[in-house]
Amino acid sequence: MHAEHFKAARQAARAGAGSGGIPIGAALVRDGKLVATGHNERVQQSDPTAHAEIACLRAAGRQSTYRDTVLYSTLAPCAMCTGAIIQFQIPCVIVGEAETFPGELDLLRSRGVDVVVLNDPECINLMLDFQQSNPGLWAEDIGR
Amino acid sequence: MHAEHFKAARQAARAGAGSGGIPIGAALVRDGKLVATGHNERVQQSDPTAHAEIACLRAAGRQSTYRDTVLYSTLAPCAMCTGAIIQFQIPCVIVGEAETFPGELDLLRSRGVDVVVLNDPECINLMLDFQQSNPGLWAEDIGR
Repeated sequence: MHAEHFKAARQAARAGAGSGGIPIGAALVRDGKLVATGHNERVQQSDPTAHAEIACLRAAGRQSTYRDTVLYSTLAPCAMCTGAIIQFQIPCVIVGEAETFPGELDLLRSRGVDVVVLNDPECINLMLDFQQSNPGLWAEDIGR
Repeated sequence: MHAEHFKAARQAARAGAGSGGIPIGAALVRDGKLVATGHNERVQQSDPTAHAEIACLRAAGRQSTYRDTVLYSTLAPCAMCTGAIIQFQIPCVIVGEAETFPGELDLLRSRGVDVVVLNDPECINLMLDFQQSNPGLWAEDIGR
């Protein structure tokens, strides 16, 4: 775990918030080098599939393998993003926090993915502020 | 199950093949009306997340709910697309075939999704032809 990569994911989350969107960011890393970042773009692109992790994997483009990568996300991955991690065989996921949304960490672990949760206070506060200010948008994003 | 909606998914698969891509198509339906279709666009858009189901959900844009929808796909949904179906709480999935790729039908059913498999010969032949002609691309698409 490299702190600067987690910071890149958190910076992407802030950039998403800054453009009027949902403050969740992700970063894909290979051999200690940043491959791509992404943030949730449901609002900006009217794209419900553009969760941070999906936007990041899309930005990274086609890859011959993900088995040598680590995915960082500021929030616990939902079922869709968990499925993407399983499908692409990403072996390790670093999660900013799972306090404001539990995600599917048990499913990830049951498929052999190494999951680390950082309990990052900045990520928690970003999400708490967003959820309290935008309950309808948050409910839409998590399908409730 | 409406045959014309399944045909729309299959037509999307053929359109994907016709533009040099992977021949998998999907259709989202609400109240008997087609909301959107999509096909795999890994090749056309260099987008590894653009499986048919994801491309279809993206084309449909933001929806307040999916609980009144049915998703059609010519091929059994992979882990990512299964996760999207679970996340968006789509209650019913009609699958063209699960013979050339098993997908994650058990996971879908374990989360309460109603899954119907049609064993459609045209879908099977489309995929067999593609897999035999493009083994590397197919392996890339399913993360092997």
